[in-house]
Amino acid sequence: MINTTNKLIREPRITLVGAGPGDAELITLKGVKALQTADVVLYDALVNDELLELAPKNAVKVYVGKRSGDHSYSQDAVNKLMIDYAINYGHVVRLKGGDPFVFGRGFEELDYAASYSIPAQVIPGISSSIGVPGMQHIPVTHRGLSESFWVVTGTTASHQISPDVYQAAKTNATIVVLMGIQKLGEIAEIFKNEGKHKLPVAVIQSGTTNEEKVAIGIVDTIAEIVEEKKITSPALIVFGEVVSLHPQFAPIKEFYAIVAEE
Amino acid sequence: MINTTNKLIREPRITLVGAGPGDAELITLKGVKALQTADVVLYDALVNDELLELAPKNAVKVYVGKRSGDHSYSQDAVNKLMIDYAINYGHVVRLKGGDPFVFGRGFEELDYAASYSIPAQVIPGISSSIGVPGMQHIPVTHRGLSESFWVVTGTTASHQISPDVYQAAKTNATIVVLMGIQKLGEIAEIFKNEGKHKLPVAVIQSGTTNEEKVAIGIVDTIAEIVEEKKITSPALIVFGEVVSLHPQFAPIKEFYAIVAEE
Repeated sequence: MINTTNKLIREPRITLVGAGPGDAELITLKGVKALQTADVVLYDALVNDELLELAPKNAVKVYVGKRSGDHSYSQDAVNKLMIDYAINYGHVVRLKGGDPFVFGRGFEELDYAASYSIPAQVIPGISSSIGVPGMQHIPVTHRGLSESFWVVTGTTASHQISPDVYQAAKTNATIVVLMGIQKLGEIAEIFKNEGKHKLPVAVIQSGTTNEEKVAIGIVDTIAEIVEEKKITSPALIVFGEVVSLHPQFAPIKEFYAIVAEE
Repeated sequence: MINTTNKLIREPRITLVGAGPGDAELITLKGVKALQTADVVLYDALVNDELLELAPKNAVKVYVGKRSGDHSYSQDAVNKLMIDYAINYGHVVRLKGGDPFVFGRGFEELDYAASYSIPAQVIPGISSSIGVPGMQHIPVTHRGLSESFWVVTGTTASHQISPDVYQAAKTNATIVVLMGIQKLGEIAEIFKNEGKHKLPVAVIQSGTTNEEKVAIGIVDTIAEIVEEKKITSPALIVFGEVVSLHPQFAPIKEFYAIVAEE
């Protein structure tokens, strides 16, 4: 333990902060203020490193990310670390990609803090589900095209496609699938089974960052386009008529108009 | 026109900025930077006034909000004003409550800007749909309770309840209804027709602000509780098992456990 002098005066507390989808400037002012008073920052894989510079220089910064195939920290280990640091150092900022409560397992951390009677606060973040399509000028809702949006995960605890994806494919909502890129073919198949072969689809990798890659197509073609463009995780998928508003959709629309005329 | 000297040097451009759900500190850093370079700010009804102070003192600030029953500005008028100010003043920041693309009609403004060849950018905001339940420690997703969330509007262009609400009530998703408080009774009825009488429900008015009010109940009781607590617009409704994680739900759970035993 380093900060032994501070140990005695700092009350343990935990702040869950949503770091946003990637671009460091998409964190909230409230998130910045939390970071500025952090004694410890525990941060995830998809968090922009630049945000760590907002914390005091002498703050402890610990990477607790889980990448596929590299489960360095289990959720249980993260929970325990969080409590341990709070008791020994004071203010722990738990910096999570996107929003803490959108598939972030944030409530489990909150619950764990409560079981130790450590006060915890939540600061929302820009969820990639809305912000990533948004910065690509794809609105999740738009009059005449979509009156709602439904955010689902492609990777459930049981590694199966969630039953919610099957339900979602039957509806008129804009469907945003997070963590589903590795199952894109299977997920597209679900939409095909609903007869939605020509529904517009966007896949966006590393949205809002310099590494951003975008694929625009329809249900029938998207898996092929994504393979060609070598788009991989982290990426999200948007199914819905709203994708037709993206400039790259115009040539696709024209192509099908010509095919239809022939 | 005032800034006649600036008129000649400033390129017209438009930035749609999401102001977040209410708390001024829930704007993003990127949003702050846009405001700091604004020549004009066009702002909506649900935007926190404190944010206007982030814009330069000599920036023009125009309220273009629409409140129910007081349609001072039509969308068409807002679009025209936005173009007019951009051409005459330079950088127009269009400051919108929540996120510009979550029922914000943001794409219509973007489209209008494009028709005048005025460059436009989008800066996402914290959507109340995620951030408001989140700051109340209600996660929109939680392992074992909800693998997805579906955001719908209670007020469509045609003033009818959206068909999406009927579809949503049939699913396991967490359902967040924005702008639905005036139709709470009708919407609860839709869930009752699906047999979901005991599904937990939260209603949150003016979330993340000092005027915040919260009602926690179940489908069968929520309309009554909301009336008792005099909760009114602006408010959102959350239907889902995740609401059972809210501390105020504990006594409700206990009550039904006792009833079940008798």
